[in-house]
Amino acid sequence: MTKNKIDKFGEERERLNQLVKKYAGVNSQRFLNIDWQVYKEGALDAKTKELMGLVSSLVLRCDDCIMYHLIRCREESVTDEELEETVAIGLIVGGSITIPHIRRIWDAWENMKQNNDI
Amino acid sequence: MTKNKIDKFGEERERLNQLVKKYAGVNSQRFLNIDWQVYKEGALDAKTKELMGLVSSLVLRCDDCIMYHLIRCREESVTDEELEETVAIGLIVGGSITIPHIRRIWDAWENMKQNNDI
Amino acid sequence: MTKNKIDKFGEERERLNQLVKKYAGVNSQRFLNIDWQVYKEGALDAKTKELMGLVSSLVLRCDDCIMYHLIRCREESVTDEELEETVAIGLIVGGSITIPHIRRIWDAWENMKQNNDI
Amino acid sequence: MTKNKIDKFGEERERLNQLVKKYAGVNSQRFLNIDWQVYKEGALDAKTKELMGLVSSLVLRCDDCIMYHLIRCREESVTDEELEETVAIGLIVGGSITIPHIRRIWDAWENMKQNNDI
Amino acid sequence: MTKNKIDKFGEERERLNQLVKKYAGVNSQRFLNIDWQVYKEGALDAKTKELMGLVSSLVLRCDDCIMYHLIRCREESVTDEELEETVAIGLIVGGSITIPHIRRIWDAWENMKQNNDI
Amino acid sequence: MTKNKIDKFGEERERLNQLVKKYAGVNSQRFLNIDWQVYKEGALDAKTKELMGLVSSLVLRCDDCIMYHLIRCREESVTDEELEETVAIGLIVGGSITIPHIRRIWDAWENMKQNNDI
Repeated sequence: MTKNKIDKFGEERERLNQLVKKYAGVNSQRFLNIDWQVYKEGALDAKTKELMGLVSSLVLRCDDCIMYHLIRCREESVTDEELEETVAIGLIVGGSITIPHIRRIWDAWENMKQNNDI
Repeated sequence: MTKNKIDKFGEERERLNQLVKKYAGVNSQRFLNIDWQVYKEGALDAKTKELMGLVSSLVLRCDDCIMYHLIRCREESVTDEELEETVAIGLIVGGSITIPHIRRIWDAWENMKQNNDI
Repeated sequence: MTKNKIDKFGEERERLNQLVKKYAGVNSQRFLNIDWQVYKEGALDAKTKELMGLVSSLVLRCDDCIMYHLIRCREESVTDEELEETVAIGLIVGGSITIPHIRRIWDAWENMKQNNDI
Repeated sequence: MTKNKIDKFGEERERLNQLVKKYAGVNSQRFLNIDWQVYKEGALDAKTKELMGLVSSLVLRCDDCIMYHLIRCREESVTDEELEETVAIGLIVGGSITIPHIRRIWDAWENMKQNNDI
Repeated sequence: MTKNKIDKFGEERERLNQLVKKYAGVNSQRFLNIDWQVYKEGALDAKTKELMGLVSSLVLRCDDCIMYHLIRCREESVTDEELEETVAIGLIVGGSITIPHIRRIWDAWENMKQNNDI
Repeated sequence: MTKNKIDKFGEERERLNQLVKKYAGVNSQRFLNIDWQVYKEGALDAKTKELMGLVSSLVLRCDDCIMYHLIRCREESVTDEELEETVAIGLIVGGSITIPHIRRIWDAWENMKQNNDI
């Protein structure tokens, strides 16, 4: 994922989030707020939480969720080795059905690194 | 989703359904027939059933299924508020992993309304 | 499910909910609060929302969630026919993998009716 | 699973199926009929179809469905090696999350063989 | 799927697999090796195993996995009837939520046949 | 989960694992070996990996897998707060459908602590 693609991913995400907020009732709004809070540093640091968000998204096989946490992982300075061990757990737990998503993880990661995007 | 996009979604769906029917054996044909019958008005009205089809598709995270039921919801005159409460149930039951699909729901719904498509 | 079993289901659920609350941080507490609010009457009535909760739980195949919503459905005076049409949508959407859960739905429903439990 | 347990599994299954049929509307009845037909010998033989039913049930992690197809596999004279290769595909596709179900498969299979149950 | 599309699918798959291997640790590498071995002829022939891989991918709803096994099914000379019966089992087990994937199966299959691709 | 229950869980698990190994072919054996290796300390420490195993098991809703990782978490001296934040991520990602499993997590955790089991 080149810088351009990450920017586009972020912009489209922001555009759609505005739409979601426009229609969201009070319960949905509260959920969206918690969804943000839960990854903030607490007893566990933010990096560990992002890796957890990533592995959860991987075993549930949600590309958009994976990409969001992958960008956050890079912001949290996750190393290649840490990412690989996280992906390996997702692969073993979730099976070969996760492989297409793992391909897209490394493709995006490689591009982020080549472009020193974040 | 503009009128054009809805039309294209419907046309592609129809083209592929013809292919499915071409290859379908008797059991598959019977299933496809039931799949149609089960949403018809009975003890519950058609609108309620479409909302059930939508929330089921949302928690199972199937975009094509969601889009089909969303178009049907609009045909059944579902209001913004009814759609929001249905989506909120799907969000709470299915978790943040459903959010990317919810973004696409509101994007399509907004477009349907702006174009007064159905 | 006899009255005795429903009572036990409710008591064990209550006991465990106390434990969950004991350990729950602020985000979990907020989630549990929304989880309650989202089924309250709004643009859609409570019965429709419970049927949605039931069909979502059925396609996701969670027995505890199914049983909770089934008890609530009976409290909301859902008829046999309404329940059957809801179950049929879950069966068609979710496939034969839902059948073991449907067996348990009707077993519990039959018992609730025989004992005029709620 | 001893002969006694298999008998009980079958009897309870039959009792609940009667309940399902009692409440089933026409669409549910039709589905239950197809669910039977689809495993009958056709272009593919019955044994292959039962192995497919088993691997599908394994990756979807439904114990009741697994046990039903396992009994049918034994009726179709599936060998240890054929069962192992089927289970291995389910394990690789579905990941370690399938292991608890695989444990129960071999426990039941071992008992079926020891008691020469079917 | 025309020959061109199959080629592109294969080439992109190969490009990404190279990336996966570049980053893969020893555990991931071992998994990828098993993922290949498990479909090789043994007590069950390769065709039967590919059909199992297909039906597993269908009920788990993974398009990339489906497409890989579909191409392999054609290489193993699976007939229309065998494919249809396999798809029908996936449809009944997994429900209507699998239909969008089944549409894409027949679209790809039709194209493979028209172009005598493999 | 009292000490007695944890012991029984471990013993039954061990008994069944012996059965799995008895029938396992070379691919299954290799998988089971990787499944062990992947949680060993590397770039990430063992505690972090067990928390990842737990959150993955929670969003995939596998009680046996959850219980195994919960016991391992206690062995790795996970604190109440660390467990709560991990569970909260699973709850938000996976939705209310995970709540029955979260109830069982805290019930087991409370018992482990009261009995100072590990």
